[in-house]
Amino acid sequence: MPSPEFFQVVPVADALALLDAHWQPQPQPETIASADALNRVLAADLHSPERAPAFRKSAVDGYAMKAADTFGASQSLPAFLQVRGELKMGEAPQDDIDAGEALLIHTGGMLPTSADAVVMVELTQAVGADEVEVMRAVAPGENVIQAGEDVAEGDLILPRGHRLRPQDIGGLLAVGVTELALLPAPRIGILSCGDELAPPGAALSPGRVRDINAYTLSALAGECGALPVRLGIAADSMDDYRRRAEAGFAACDILLLSAGSSVSARDYTRDVINGLGAPGVLQHGLATKPGKPTILAVCDNKPVIGLPGNPVSALLVARQLLPVLIARFLRQTPQLPATVRARLSQRVASVSGREDWLPVRLIESADGTPIAEPIFGKSNLIFTLVKADGLLPVPLNTGGFDAGSIVAVQPF
Amino acid sequence: MPSPEFFQVVPVADALALLDAHWQPQPQPETIASADALNRVLAADLHSPERAPAFRKSAVDGYAMKAADTFGASQSLPAFLQVRGELKMGEAPQDDIDAGEALLIHTGGMLPTSADAVVMVELTQAVGADEVEVMRAVAPGENVIQAGEDVAEGDLILPRGHRLRPQDIGGLLAVGVTELALLPAPRIGILSCGDELAPPGAALSPGRVRDINAYTLSALAGECGALPVRLGIAADSMDDYRRRAEAGFAACDILLLSAGSSVSARDYTRDVINGLGAPGVLQHGLATKPGKPTILAVCDNKPVIGLPGNPVSALLVARQLLPVLIARFLRQTPQLPATVRARLSQRVASVSGREDWLPVRLIESADGTPIAEPIFGKSNLIFTLVKADGLLPVPLNTGGFDAGSIVAVQPF
Repeated sequence: MPSPEFFQVVPVADALALLDAHWQPQPQPETIASADALNRVLAADLHSPERAPAFRKSAVDGYAMKAADTFGASQSLPAFLQVRGELKMGEAPQDDIDAGEALLIHTGGMLPTSADAVVMVELTQAVGADEVEVMRAVAPGENVIQAGEDVAEGDLILPRGHRLRPQDIGGLLAVGVTELALLPAPRIGILSCGDELAPPGAALSPGRVRDINAYTLSALAGECGALPVRLGIAADSMDDYRRRAEAGFAACDILLLSAGSSVSARDYTRDVINGLGAPGVLQHGLATKPGKPTILAVCDNKPVIGLPGNPVSALLVARQLLPVLIARFLRQTPQLPATVRARLSQRVASVSGREDWLPVRLIESADGTPIAEPIFGKSNLIFTLVKADGLLPVPLNTGGFDAGSIVAVQPF
Repeated sequence: MPSPEFFQVVPVADALALLDAHWQPQPQPETIASADALNRVLAADLHSPERAPAFRKSAVDGYAMKAADTFGASQSLPAFLQVRGELKMGEAPQDDIDAGEALLIHTGGMLPTSADAVVMVELTQAVGADEVEVMRAVAPGENVIQAGEDVAEGDLILPRGHRLRPQDIGGLLAVGVTELALLPAPRIGILSCGDELAPPGAALSPGRVRDINAYTLSALAGECGALPVRLGIAADSMDDYRRRAEAGFAACDILLLSAGSSVSARDYTRDVINGLGAPGVLQHGLATKPGKPTILAVCDNKPVIGLPGNPVSALLVARQLLPVLIARFLRQTPQLPATVRARLSQRVASVSGREDWLPVRLIESADGTPIAEPIFGKSNLIFTLVKADGLLPVPLNTGGFDAGSIVAVQPF
């Protein structure tokens, strides 16, 4: 006979703290081409192996020369300079310049050794083929980018734990760093269990349903920068469940079990988890709806989460836990979810002592604040989430929200 | 001799409107496995090929029976039901039930034909091996999920243009949709031009720099859900530039040219673009800094953007244009950039008539509002962006911001 499930629920934050107390992630760095490292996390501090720019260069199109040659120059009394030719881009100057000489140079061009400034072409006037008038005095260093002005050799350019953005990849490549030691994307194992589950492509006999948790959880893991590893469907038998969980556990950094709906499968989950390593199950029961019967465990220094089989519950609980676990693995501060201010269309009741997650539609309104319209429906209907634009959390110790309340909806 | 560049600048929004007026994106749908479709965009409305759930199922663990058999039942006067056995998960009931009978059923189990309700196990009491007492009256339909209650056959489940989330993939797989017609990710061709440019892995001779634009722009395109196609480096010669641009143009949906710094390369860019197709160059000059000399074109119904060669300018201009072009291609409304409220550490001056983009550091402060500290430096130093946490736009028609102003920084 089935027996009702009794357990002490704890808030999600407390459950996560419990995991933290038993888990020290030890990601092993891997080497990746810098060009492929977008959004990846540095495993070590990065110092520049060279300076940038590597040489003194012009910031404008103009003439490289000695600033002193222009001192006192003006529109009415221009300085005359002898033009020694034009610098070809990508080459070092063939000759140096002497006092009274200039070299035609382009933006980014390398300055001759004795030049200490560049005058913009707009402030000059060509005179014949090889002379130029400079209409203004130019200060030493004007329009010159000094060697090492962007970054010096040995400078710390990015710290361990930094997540790489497009400009970071540019900066690293600019100083010749073409490979990086990065934290690995955590592998999230996902195992479903239940005799009623069939792969999505299979024909369904009556009483069976398609296993969608493997795919919603994979997508969620991918969105968080992790690598989902789908481990298939275990039968409702202790042997098969244990065998598949053990194999999957060895191949991943975080394991999600999505237990079937039957009581036996639920009972198996605790035992299967405890068999994976110490300390095993730390908490059974979260003060969140949906998702109350979630199991949290650490086995042999890897988090293992027993999610409800119900697809809505599994996804909404995983959404609260997985981004935080992935961030911890990558030594990042978990990001707070983005929120949209909205006006609630109707009263929402809630039971104190648990956090409710309510799917809502967001509807544009004349005053610019969207209307949040709750989508009611049995909590195991996945299309309540497909129809939703976001989730409204109703916090632990409130009785709900009144109609017209301004609430913070999390787009989802 | 180089001549200064004169052109009429227009605000970025106006330039984008000009592109829109000459560009009708015609993405050709492609078929992709639903499991791989996260963040992809539906090419057509999607109707459900079947109902879900496919059969009437129990929402709880309990006993399936006829509700009428429990009418009047109470703690003190329970209803007695004969238990006909236990439904195995994933199977159809072998027998129907008669009046006075019940079937032990688990969450998600398929109801026998004549059952119209399920009583939760918590409200029952087993009596011997095959009888159960029900302590409460149960209403018809209670704890039953009707066939088609989640979605009916033929229902519009997701509209054309919808970007797929984890729950959408779940919903689609739940009704057996394993393949989808999706809009293709736009291919963004990226061609750099300039004799001074070397690939990042190459050894540098004096006067040469590494081509980083190809990589910063690839990363930006990837972040926006597009497929970057790196087209290499063209020499500072009209022939090579044109040949590579033409080949790349044929293989992409949007072409970015990052012109070298030399005047000749800049001059070539207009001609190369105009050679790619009509109408050609639409606008030369944006009221934005950095990025003023940007060229916008549509050639043969594809946008072509001539970006400055300066890596900072190229990235900051592309960041203003590319997400919008990619959204248009995918028939999405471009998203406004996220912003963080911050307090400006010092006065920032700006010239009216152009929008300035200033890299800033964000520094935590005691009152919770971060301090935005401008990073000054010559605008072609990529490490000004590497050191930045975000960008502060100083709008077109302001003279800047005073120290202590509350400003909206765009994390970047």
